[in-house]
Amino acid sequence: MSERRPVHCHVVENAARTLLKERGVEIEDLARIVYDMQAQYNPDLQLEDCMDSVDKVLEKREIQHAVLVGIELDKLAEKKQLSEPLQSIVEMDEGLFGVDETIALGSVFGYGSIAVTSFGYLDKEKVGIIRELDQKKDDRVHTFLDDLLCSIAANASSRLAHRLRDRQERLREEEIKKRDEEERIG
Amino acid sequence: MSERRPVHCHVVENAARTLLKERGVEIEDLARIVYDMQAQYNPDLQLEDCMDSVDKVLEKREIQHAVLVGIELDKLAEKKQLSEPLQSIVEMDEGLFGVDETIALGSVFGYGSIAVTSFGYLDKEKVGIIRELDQKKDDRVHTFLDDLLCSIAANASSRLAHRLRDRQERLREEEIKKRDEEERIG
Amino acid sequence: MSERRPVHCHVVENAARTLLKERGVEIEDLARIVYDMQAQYNPDLQLEDCMDSVDKVLEKREIQHAVLVGIELDKLAEKKQLSEPLQSIVEMDEGLFGVDETIALGSVFGYGSIAVTSFGYLDKEKVGIIRELDQKKDDRVHTFLDDLLCSIAANASSRLAHRLRDRQERLREEEIKKRDEEERIG
Amino acid sequence: MSERRPVHCHVVENAARTLLKERGVEIEDLARIVYDMQAQYNPDLQLEDCMDSVDKVLEKREIQHAVLVGIELDKLAEKKQLSEPLQSIVEMDEGLFGVDETIALGSVFGYGSIAVTSFGYLDKEKVGIIRELDQKKDDRVHTFLDDLLCSIAANASSRLAHRLRDRQERLREEEIKKRDEEERIG
Repeated sequence: MSERRPVHCHVVENAARTLLKERGVEIEDLARIVYDMQAQYNPDLQLEDCMDSVDKVLEKREIQHAVLVGIELDKLAEKKQLSEPLQSIVEMDEGLFGVDETIALGSVFGYGSIAVTSFGYLDKEKVGIIRELDQKKDDRVHTFLDDLLCSIAANASSRLAHRLRDRQERLREEEIKKRDEEERIG
Repeated sequence: MSERRPVHCHVVENAARTLLKERGVEIEDLARIVYDMQAQYNPDLQLEDCMDSVDKVLEKREIQHAVLVGIELDKLAEKKQLSEPLQSIVEMDEGLFGVDETIALGSVFGYGSIAVTSFGYLDKEKVGIIRELDQKKDDRVHTFLDDLLCSIAANASSRLAHRLRDRQERLREEEIKKRDEEERIG
Repeated sequence: MSERRPVHCHVVENAARTLLKERGVEIEDLARIVYDMQAQYNPDLQLEDCMDSVDKVLEKREIQHAVLVGIELDKLAEKKQLSEPLQSIVEMDEGLFGVDETIALGSVFGYGSIAVTSFGYLDKEKVGIIRELDQKKDDRVHTFLDDLLCSIAANASSRLAHRLRDRQERLREEEIKKRDEEERIG
Repeated sequence: MSERRPVHCHVVENAARTLLKERGVEIEDLARIVYDMQAQYNPDLQLEDCMDSVDKVLEKREIQHAVLVGIELDKLAEKKQLSEPLQSIVEMDEGLFGVDETIALGSVFGYGSIAVTSFGYLDKEKVGIIRELDQKKDDRVHTFLDDLLCSIAANASSRLAHRLRDRQERLREEEIKKRDEEERIG
């Protein structure tokens, strides 16, 4: 049966990206958070690097799946289509309800321990777009989206930290090579 | 506003227990899996101890929340009420979809590393009721329930292992006390 | 062979508590961090409640084991007794080294998702005793201890949040019971 | 100060690979475990693919750091150089001691939920080289190595599963493109 074939990854990726936009989140919003977290460690950092890093994170299957599930639950809660008591719990974003954080954390681990601490920090401090969504007091439900954004920003941030190190190490290698060569010639 | 009051824990607990029954899972089914995993380490183990341990695990908020979310998603998928492509992914329990495992894992960590390895083992071997649900080929969707059961059984199993050790240590202490006393008297 | 008997839990617990003291950490130092994190949610909170909560967290096997391993590694690094390149990595508390956070996180999961976000926050903000240890510029190595303290404080904090809710729910129940009774009598 | 410079990644990678060899583990040993786990899903799988996948996993910083710490602790325990009671706990690989699994798990999360369940399975079933090390009854201590091997094999296994899917999807795309083209021409 052709329908038993797994959903193609492009379909999943497009759906996740479209959902984020639909919920009012642009890649640049997330990139700004990443920039604010990483600029202190990397003076040459450009917003574009951060946009690129967010983009790369969104290419990951684990993130896309988490986005699909989380936003689906937010939207169902908005339309009052979840069963009780889950409807009330999600709608009021109850403090002791942790499935939203669990789903988001699931994709954070993939980016190492820096990503986990950055996630915890963002989830508590709620900066930028995360704060905006959190404070909007219309009928929108962002219980899951809120944590997903922390996860994406934390991952993109950790990714940059690892890349920065890689670049520094390559530079060091070239430096050493050059010195060795000069010594040989010298 | 009275509705802003968090849902009472009894309501959440009852809902989680009712959902499990409704989906065909009895505490005894889970207790049998626990028994099979723990009997080798504890020859005195009774099925009742295992039922009691499953029961205690179901008292935990984290598990109850995971059950509410997971079974909700299963039921929505059964009724074809999820958006695409999530509907297809959940319906066919896609191999690379990991949100089901992530949600279940979230409540496994609470019971230590034995629980995590037991979860992985159960998720791969699928014994007892977990296998039955997995093999039922009707229109039922058990994508999330499947992993939730592995989580509950793994937690109850780890809980028993820790208790067994506690009991052995108390016995040892009493033994030592008795010997000390005898020596003092002797 | 009697030596094959597992180490008694009291021995492990005492060792963990002694090590913390030896490294300059008192229960009260950790309780202060917990107090600062939780007082906003609970106006009746006393420092003593926080000390009690830290104490209860220290009774957990997972935490004790993490403390034993982490402080052992710190002490070995201090004495330059680790092999290279591990010695250098631990000694300078390298940013991309994550085993310290992994070990600490292992015992955080047990206290739910609030504990995970609190851990991330503390690890980034470094308050109280955590900051003091981090800034001490003598030959001491606190690479692992640093994260262990974040873990203990995060766990004690999450534990209080859950207890607070339990208490509120019991109060609500009694309220309801009283009202029902009054109605019956009335 | 030049010594404050972080240790170069090549140094770390070489140290991790050398330690594994020194403890009797070859890439091929791990590849065999991976092959046995994945061959059923992928009939074209070659042992070489598995060796390549293990090799790629060993390029990851998180794994390398875990290997450095874990084997260091095993070796210290072998030489009776850990403090008590940690020495006894590690030496006898106590059932309720979970730091070994925690360290190994830290690098498993990076490969998604398939990696976590595979890790749990391997840790319980102990196949191939993992079983050999576990059963060796000389003075060697492999408490941490044991779990690290489960982690590396689980990661390499999960990596292959994700790659297999990627390949299938690319094939499907080309198929579709070809069909579209034929239709256009036709």
